[in-house]
Amino acid sequence: MDDRIREHAETLVDWSARVEAGDRVVVSVDEGAHDLARAVAAALGERGATPHFTYASGEVSRAYLRAASPESFDEPSHELALYEASDVVLHLGGGRNTAATADVPGEHRQARARASEAVREARFDTRWVSTVHPTRSLAQAADMAVEPYRAFVYDAILRDWAALAEEMAQLKDRLDAASTVRLVAPDTDTDLELSVEDRVAVNSAASVAYDSHNLPSGEVFTAPVVDSVEGTVTFDVPQRINGRRVRDVRLTFEDGVVVDHAAAQGADAIGEVLDTDAGARRLGELGIGMNRGIDRVTDNLLFDEKMAGTVHLALGRAYDACLPEGASGNESAAHVDLICDTTDNARLELDGEVVHRNGTFVWEDGFAAE
Amino acid sequence: MDDRIREHAETLVDWSARVEAGDRVVVSVDEGAHDLARAVAAALGERGATPHFTYASGEVSRAYLRAASPESFDEPSHELALYEASDVVLHLGGGRNTAATADVPGEHRQARARASEAVREARFDTRWVSTVHPTRSLAQAADMAVEPYRAFVYDAILRDWAALAEEMAQLKDRLDAASTVRLVAPDTDTDLELSVEDRVAVNSAASVAYDSHNLPSGEVFTAPVVDSVEGTVTFDVPQRINGRRVRDVRLTFEDGVVVDHAAAQGADAIGEVLDTDAGARRLGELGIGMNRGIDRVTDNLLFDEKMAGTVHLALGRAYDACLPEGASGNESAAHVDLICDTTDNARLELDGEVVHRNGTFVWEDGFAAE
Repeated sequence: MDDRIREHAETLVDWSARVEAGDRVVVSVDEGAHDLARAVAAALGERGATPHFTYASGEVSRAYLRAASPESFDEPSHELALYEASDVVLHLGGGRNTAATADVPGEHRQARARASEAVREARFDTRWVSTVHPTRSLAQAADMAVEPYRAFVYDAILRDWAALAEEMAQLKDRLDAASTVRLVAPDTDTDLELSVEDRVAVNSAASVAYDSHNLPSGEVFTAPVVDSVEGTVTFDVPQRINGRRVRDVRLTFEDGVVVDHAAAQGADAIGEVLDTDAGARRLGELGIGMNRGIDRVTDNLLFDEKMAGTVHLALGRAYDACLPEGASGNESAAHVDLICDTTDNARLELDGEVVHRNGTFVWEDGFAAE
Repeated sequence: MDDRIREHAETLVDWSARVEAGDRVVVSVDEGAHDLARAVAAALGERGATPHFTYASGEVSRAYLRAASPESFDEPSHELALYEASDVVLHLGGGRNTAATADVPGEHRQARARASEAVREARFDTRWVSTVHPTRSLAQAADMAVEPYRAFVYDAILRDWAALAEEMAQLKDRLDAASTVRLVAPDTDTDLELSVEDRVAVNSAASVAYDSHNLPSGEVFTAPVVDSVEGTVTFDVPQRINGRRVRDVRLTFEDGVVVDHAAAQGADAIGEVLDTDAGARRLGELGIGMNRGIDRVTDNLLFDEKMAGTVHLALGRAYDACLPEGASGNESAAHVDLICDTTDNARLELDGEVVHRNGTFVWEDGFAAE
């Protein structure tokens, strides 16, 4: 077995999920993630944890979801019992076709999602972590051959996470101390201001110990004060929303609400998101990518939004971890991340002080104050 | 998709497991059974059942079982919760290597089996059915190319089960009425007599409605009165016990107990079985194969023991379904089936009347009374 697969499994089990002897673990295995599943199984065995392996195949899901009638979806009470009795959930993504479920009718998808709400909540109550095994299908989505794609994925995942957490703490501390964030990128007509007063930033260091549930991670994120968002922003990193390509989405905010939207491609897709509910027209997240192992866009949100030199904003639901005790944040059934490239003629200001310019942070060599 | 896969899935779901709307179903998917899993998912969706898919990979199990220390195996309480909340369990066998777990130490296997006892019982309390998808690995074990192997498997599985159940009822009725069974095969020095007084034969027609949990099935089986077994029998169908090949196992019984054993190959393996516990030296089952879709030995017990023209006996545990109300049968941690070919110079007598000779039953054309 490729040593990197073993290291990936150990990072997932030890750093990310903090697995201990006696833990009941659910490992969900996508069609292409078999080799990672073997390595995770060995790591769990060594640590004295007790695993249960589920088969998370897109093709199998598609067959079930298309065949069932939307009225017939029941709560999967047996699955709920499984998750309620589990301490840790590890999702090993990596399929054989990123479009495997593309023809499942939205109505079936939504009916299933409603029936599975309690299961989803029970999963979120565990020490859950999502990661991916680098399959040919994901390499293809990234426009890359499989070997360089694997190298890319392991560069993103096999990092010195403790060191990155320390570096990210510098940004978290500045964000926690700041009142106002401003993002400026003249080439894309971006100038957006928002308040983070009383908000708590998450130092997302790929570990449940940091309230972080993705491997790779490597971002610092917070929740804007909902009504405070003013200005215009263009998201120039191409991506997909519900399977549809979007490019150069442009949003204008007044008093925290989207009052105008446009896109070079996929304007319909963004329009549908905005129409989900009232919260979907407001921002739930501001995130700043800090993972330098991710040096290119690969059409995979798990990686793209963590890329150093990007900033992302999410329409919709805010994470509780960012809110002051007792406060409630933006609520919505949607949470859609949109990404800006900030490596070229772009800056991020906290209370008027530039902390990031053209891909370099204020504490790094080569940072230009002006 | 091959129509036979769809038909296999529908036979499994409708005939075998009697799935109904609202059923909570666990589908356990072996590494090579993906295509059957897709078809089963569609059939379950159409019937309004709610599935949960588990990944039953030999390679993943091996990795876990080898890495864990025997003292560290805990009851998988999350898995127990899953099965306790389930109505139906469908096991879709069919791996990529029949020897995938060959190097798991017996001590680890046994420790895991002990820790999983409650899970096993909970699974047996559901409408469970085991079947297999015809993989290249199973074709290889059968010494066959994959296409003819697939044809063989579907001949065994896609039968008119209701018609076979009716045919098998003739043997069940005769066995239920009989006191003494005698198996004679002079060429292999076989002459064994046992009592089935008060025993109830199972008409194993591949459906939970018949107390039958294998697809394919097609056998009638009962439990001998334990102390009644007398004589000698040679099992001339080659097979494997715990991964080791055995050939021409020969057992001699006195007062129901094995007093002598030998084998042309694998005498050690059979010796270990006999030493498991006191019940392992006694018979728990007499089964008579009646599936004419199975016309050759393929080194797979699920098929071999159902082959028309064979009789099998199992050392160890008896099935409760064969015992009179309140009676207890032979108890043992072992249940090891051993198979005799009865197509050539062999006969089966019930109370002195020949009911099967050289592969033909008394009610069939070509049966020779003498």
